[in-house]
Amino acid sequence: MKPPIILINYKAYENSYGEKGVEISKKIEKVSKDYGVPIIISVPATMIYKLSQILEIPVYAQHVDALRHGAHTGAILPEMIKDAGAKGSLLNHSERKIRLDEIHEAVTRIRDLGLESVVCADSYELVHPLALLRPNAILIEPPELIGSGRAVSKEKPEVITRAVNEIKKVEGVYLIAGAGITTGEDVYKAIELGADGIGVASAVMKSSTPEKIVEDFVINVLKAIDKKK
Amino acid sequence: MKPPIILINYKAYENSYGEKGVEISKKIEKVSKDYGVPIIISVPATMIYKLSQILEIPVYAQHVDALRHGAHTGAILPEMIKDAGAKGSLLNHSERKIRLDEIHEAVTRIRDLGLESVVCADSYELVHPLALLRPNAILIEPPELIGSGRAVSKEKPEVITRAVNEIKKVEGVYLIAGAGITTGEDVYKAIELGADGIGVASAVMKSSTPEKIVEDFVINVLKAIDKKK
Amino acid sequence: MKPPIILINYKAYENSYGEKGVEISKKIEKVSKDYGVPIIISVPATMIYKLSQILEIPVYAQHVDALRHGAHTGAILPEMIKDAGAKGSLLNHSERKIRLDEIHEAVTRIRDLGLESVVCADSYELVHPLALLRPNAILIEPPELIGSGRAVSKEKPEVITRAVNEIKKVEGVYLIAGAGITTGEDVYKAIELGADGIGVASAVMKSSTPEKIVEDFVINVLKAIDKKK
Amino acid sequence: MKPPIILINYKAYENSYGEKGVEISKKIEKVSKDYGVPIIISVPATMIYKLSQILEIPVYAQHVDALRHGAHTGAILPEMIKDAGAKGSLLNHSERKIRLDEIHEAVTRIRDLGLESVVCADSYELVHPLALLRPNAILIEPPELIGSGRAVSKEKPEVITRAVNEIKKVEGVYLIAGAGITTGEDVYKAIELGADGIGVASAVMKSSTPEKIVEDFVINVLKAIDKKK
Repeated sequence: MKPPIILINYKAYENSYGEKGVEISKKIEKVSKDYGVPIIISVPATMIYKLSQILEIPVYAQHVDALRHGAHTGAILPEMIKDAGAKGSLLNHSERKIRLDEIHEAVTRIRDLGLESVVCADSYELVHPLALLRPNAILIEPPELIGSGRAVSKEKPEVITRAVNEIKKVEGVYLIAGAGITTGEDVYKAIELGADGIGVASAVMKSSTPEKIVEDFVINVLKAIDKKK
Repeated sequence: MKPPIILINYKAYENSYGEKGVEISKKIEKVSKDYGVPIIISVPATMIYKLSQILEIPVYAQHVDALRHGAHTGAILPEMIKDAGAKGSLLNHSERKIRLDEIHEAVTRIRDLGLESVVCADSYELVHPLALLRPNAILIEPPELIGSGRAVSKEKPEVITRAVNEIKKVEGVYLIAGAGITTGEDVYKAIELGADGIGVASAVMKSSTPEKIVEDFVINVLKAIDKKK
Repeated sequence: MKPPIILINYKAYENSYGEKGVEISKKIEKVSKDYGVPIIISVPATMIYKLSQILEIPVYAQHVDALRHGAHTGAILPEMIKDAGAKGSLLNHSERKIRLDEIHEAVTRIRDLGLESVVCADSYELVHPLALLRPNAILIEPPELIGSGRAVSKEKPEVITRAVNEIKKVEGVYLIAGAGITTGEDVYKAIELGADGIGVASAVMKSSTPEKIVEDFVINVLKAIDKKK
Repeated sequence: MKPPIILINYKAYENSYGEKGVEISKKIEKVSKDYGVPIIISVPATMIYKLSQILEIPVYAQHVDALRHGAHTGAILPEMIKDAGAKGSLLNHSERKIRLDEIHEAVTRIRDLGLESVVCADSYELVHPLALLRPNAILIEPPELIGSGRAVSKEKPEVITRAVNEIKKVEGVYLIAGAGITTGEDVYKAIELGADGIGVASAVMKSSTPEKIVEDFVINVLKAIDKKK
């Protein structure tokens, strides 16, 4: 994983799986290739294998269970997502929270398997504690803005600023900003505030022209990075 | 779903997924075809698509979330397992319990999608309440015997007898007996006690010759049914 | 427990505990004595002992854990609430759901200790399954109406009618109707529709004159019962 | 809170509440007074008020919910335990784990109310992350040793040593060592390894002469501290 990080969380929408899931994934991949920017997609567990077969962009799981091989009905082990082709996993999303000991175990297992992990944090105060577990990145998302259409980078820029400050206390962990990001301007602002990347879901998944949204995001990520240099 | 029901729960063993998962599945399918008896396998979510592509025997999920399309990171919807090729799902296994309202919602959604559901019950007292939700079958498994190698049909035959009694109070729901079933004799006994089928996991998954175990189970199921007639 | 049942769930408001909790309890008890009608109050665990010492009306817990004596940090056992003076417990409230096996265990333990249990149900379809566990009563509460000020008896009278129908399938279990009950008329209607009692929380706890609300409820319960005879 | 910290977690044993709970508490208080050493007891929620009335030693809750006043059936708020007389609360015990965001919220609320918090950690890797939330102390307890009779200070001294190292990274948070502590020697060793105190449960609660066990612990705590000076 290297900045700029663009992570699209598919969640469980109608177009997150099935033929529609394949279709949107191909569009996202095209943008990724056109601009030479990697785009991570985190997809439903049932889709990891299929999408990994047909795509080159990194496919993530949305969650894994912090369990080892054994009698665990219904569990999705890190080993299983790796076998299916995933390159990593989201963990502790506000819609699928797990405990600290589970995050620790999952991050460790994922790393040992050569995969990547992105751990979500609700508030900037949790960025340092979670970064100490050494995931590849922390995704900061104030839950009240998730899916709201009001971007964290505009509504609560201080959350990103503080999170950027916190992440510096631990070396080698990136900071991704998310929640409510809807426009290219939101993306630009997030990178400008110091984030290493952005996380997005509904703005892309609920759009009738997702490829345009993603393209606009990519353009603004690149522009903001260029400006920084 | 029609009796006799043979359900093999893959859980999360090393051979529950990947190449080993494919291999054991093919062996199970061969026995199914050789004897003309359907065998249901409940597999990890990441394997549903792959196994559904190469097998004709019914592939089940081990769990689904009782949620509708939307912002549900990490969720596995009934629609997703159907799309991936599953014919049904286990629900409420002792290792992955869910609440009554969730079982109700999941069973209803699964039925509406034309899939099948098998709801697990810890004790015979819960068979009637759970059967009222109209799943296709109830799988009775005393949790203390799961994976123990001591079969419910031998150690606690009264659990099966009572569960058989309870299931009769609701029309159209089958009773499957499980927990600790290891030998053909255990299987025979379970059917003899009135069960419509058997559920098994470790005895098959941990065996070095799973095809022989499964064959022995199938033979004894058929023998017990024959005897009853 | 005998109809008419009036249950006031204190929840966790500012006046649910402490001096304010004592004060509101005394007012409720006064109404109970004035009209000769028992009123059950379900109070925070920390208040059971104190309120049981000073009141004669039945004090309930709002939840108990389905556990036996042992190493269970943070657990509230049925034995503990009995020791503190409780006469029973609410279970499975929409704000504190537990699993079916836990409800079963808790109801059984509570009964064995000579206490009473009221199990909450979200929908009428769950009334029959839950009644089979033999609690003293089922409290039906459509979650979308809880605390809404829109009474179940007016907004969804068919939920009560159907629940009344379902409860008849099991002998000896009462049906209490709740969610959004705000006025005496709402109470009257609930009893008229066949409920054995009513459950209420915010209408009383958030009122500046709770004693008047409770009095109005009691009057209407008595009037509705009188009418039925 | 000041070292040396001696914390006795009552859990949910037969003598954790009721008359037996009062009796054992008085015995513990006597030792505390005889030696002029504070001993914290964490008791069931139903016992906080009663024990706070009759004791002078600090009474803690075993758990609180990270919620604010409102419609939360079954919740135990920080405000409620304070009102009942508690001086603080255990949080995140291995038998009652909560999520990181819940620990953060609970610790903050508890501090704002002028109470104390002791947050449990399963492994030394979690000591630093949890200490960043600024509880009064972290209680390190390898879960496999809890209630085992095999003391952490003997079986896994390196866990304490490493935890002591970790806690130093955050100023003003104490480290308590627990799990399996049974003898005065175990206690002595824990303090010698650098812990600011010890946590114990079954060794005291399951003893027929708890006052002797507690006295022995206190003597050894004092001896170890003396040695260090």
